[in-house]
Amino acid sequence: MIPVKTIEWVGDADGACRIIDQTLLPTELRYLDLTDSDAMWEAIRSLRVRGAPAIGIAAAFGVYLGVRAIGPEDDSVAFIAELERVTAHLATSRPTAVNLFWALERVNRIGMEVVASGGPAAARRALLAEAVGLIDEDNAACRALGAHGAALVADGDTILTHCNAGSLATAQWGTALAVVYMAAELGKRLSVYADETRPLLQGARLTAWELQQAGVPVTVITDSMAATVMAQGRVNAVIVGTDRVAANGDFANKIGTLGVAILAREFGIPLYVAAPLSSVDLNLASGAEIPIEERKPEEVSLGFGRRTAPEGVAIYNPAFDVTPARYVTAFITERGVVRAPFAEGLARVGK
Amino acid sequence: MIPVKTIEWVGDADGACRIIDQTLLPTELRYLDLTDSDAMWEAIRSLRVRGAPAIGIAAAFGVYLGVRAIGPEDDSVAFIAELERVTAHLATSRPTAVNLFWALERVNRIGMEVVASGGPAAARRALLAEAVGLIDEDNAACRALGAHGAALVADGDTILTHCNAGSLATAQWGTALAVVYMAAELGKRLSVYADETRPLLQGARLTAWELQQAGVPVTVITDSMAATVMAQGRVNAVIVGTDRVAANGDFANKIGTLGVAILAREFGIPLYVAAPLSSVDLNLASGAEIPIEERKPEEVSLGFGRRTAPEGVAIYNPAFDVTPARYVTAFITERGVVRAPFAEGLARVGK
Repeated sequence: MIPVKTIEWVGDADGACRIIDQTLLPTELRYLDLTDSDAMWEAIRSLRVRGAPAIGIAAAFGVYLGVRAIGPEDDSVAFIAELERVTAHLATSRPTAVNLFWALERVNRIGMEVVASGGPAAARRALLAEAVGLIDEDNAACRALGAHGAALVADGDTILTHCNAGSLATAQWGTALAVVYMAAELGKRLSVYADETRPLLQGARLTAWELQQAGVPVTVITDSMAATVMAQGRVNAVIVGTDRVAANGDFANKIGTLGVAILAREFGIPLYVAAPLSSVDLNLASGAEIPIEERKPEEVSLGFGRRTAPEGVAIYNPAFDVTPARYVTAFITERGVVRAPFAEGLARVGK
Repeated sequence: MIPVKTIEWVGDADGACRIIDQTLLPTELRYLDLTDSDAMWEAIRSLRVRGAPAIGIAAAFGVYLGVRAIGPEDDSVAFIAELERVTAHLATSRPTAVNLFWALERVNRIGMEVVASGGPAAARRALLAEAVGLIDEDNAACRALGAHGAALVADGDTILTHCNAGSLATAQWGTALAVVYMAAELGKRLSVYADETRPLLQGARLTAWELQQAGVPVTVITDSMAATVMAQGRVNAVIVGTDRVAANGDFANKIGTLGVAILAREFGIPLYVAAPLSSVDLNLASGAEIPIEERKPEEVSLGFGRRTAPEGVAIYNPAFDVTPARYVTAFITERGVVRAPFAEGLARVGK
């Protein structure tokens, strides 16, 4: 049960960032080798690479790819200008996941520090090393998070999840699904209900695919069936990922999470939010401050290559929702499980 | 604002039952003229005609079409045998909506009575008249129901609905959407959020289409967005249809209704169930006794002509769910609004 690698670096300094093109799953597993920053921006914007931790890593590689392109190597002024431009551009790719900004700030700071002390060539090397290092960090964080989460579930439990917070949302081990993978390493076999997750079907396309690859029993349901499987007593826990957790424990995640959270509360099912610390934004007091991406209506009306709503009809398509902290049983982080009161717990693990 | 006619009889005794083929909406408005009972069975089974009241009417025409086909006209024994066979066969088309069985029992009884007194020719005439009469009854019931419901809403209100309980689910006026149409006649302009209603998208394809045709402002959302628009305070009332109401007020409706009902309760939004008395089944003590249709997995995995879940993955596809009576604010029937205690109220209007 070794999950797929979603993002990696191939070759030396002249190499490429290799990602799985997630828009083609589940019918085709195609890898893309990205060699410039604009291609990375497009890959993030178009959800070829998606999932909060994965787009943080992708953006870090994007910065390296951007500054790699310019010359001459000894011009620190040009390097800094390009570093700023590329960082700012990548920051426009998507608004909600804080990991994107967290990673961009981190690599930008390193680029600035190293170019000042060692010049552009050293700064480039440092940026590539930092991006590659983010993968190792992500793997370590996801495995640690998964191990903490595995203690919350029992052998034979059935988990319901929404969207994809698995391998395909991170470098390799996932966040919500890391609990499933790490539980398996501990001898606890879990089954999963995957909400299909309209409009872009990350649950049906991605979660189902990666769990099938990993040999985990998974059943796909439409989002509208979550209440039914809960009412039938088939769900022991809900585990979801997050794109941003505010200081008070409100969290943003894929549209539909709020509904799932309310249903879980109604049926007495614990709701666990798998939140690597790179997704925790202590700068925001509450979820009301989290910017919510609204995407184009065609994702709803033409999402499958066939028109499913009348031409000209109004469509509302927010990509995320915010779930108030009161519905959360616990956050699972790489530093342990955080229960209420969340403000104190998140501040403790996040500092 | 005259809604479309979903089902009607065209021609004389040798005529046809004309339905809109709802599988082709919203991109094509095509009418089908059905002239035999097997074609009607297929049209019901394949959801070319759907919606609890409409399939009751369709089944009644199906019985007439079945017995019309046999001869000679004076053989009452053959007529009765065919009447029984056709009725039993049509009863296998779909299991959940009680209107189907209600209509079949009613026309079967009339067929039996008239053939005994007047012979097959008279019985055939009676069956066609009864089926046509069901349309008139349905129109009257829907308009009365809508008028009672219109008293529950205010000018400018926004309604959220799930699936299609509109014109396309009845002969012409709808049940849940009859409230919208009748409110408009009273000068109350309503707006509607239509849940797209996976897997078969009756909300996006049908509700959005018929409201657009009728000039009612409608916004399509995915099922997973209902919680968000409620949390944003945009919804004044939820109004849904039903396929069967048990004596205690539990009711079956399109999969996803249970979730919507729980969300409405959580956000303090009234939930009204538009229930013509032909959908009330006082023979069932509670919703646990309502048979729930499970449909083929391809509706989820290949619903749009494109594979959206991996080959071989497990899929659960119940077509309906049961909402406990405790989530219902009121039932809207053609005989008035029924509030808790529902057992007494439903028994009173349903007798």
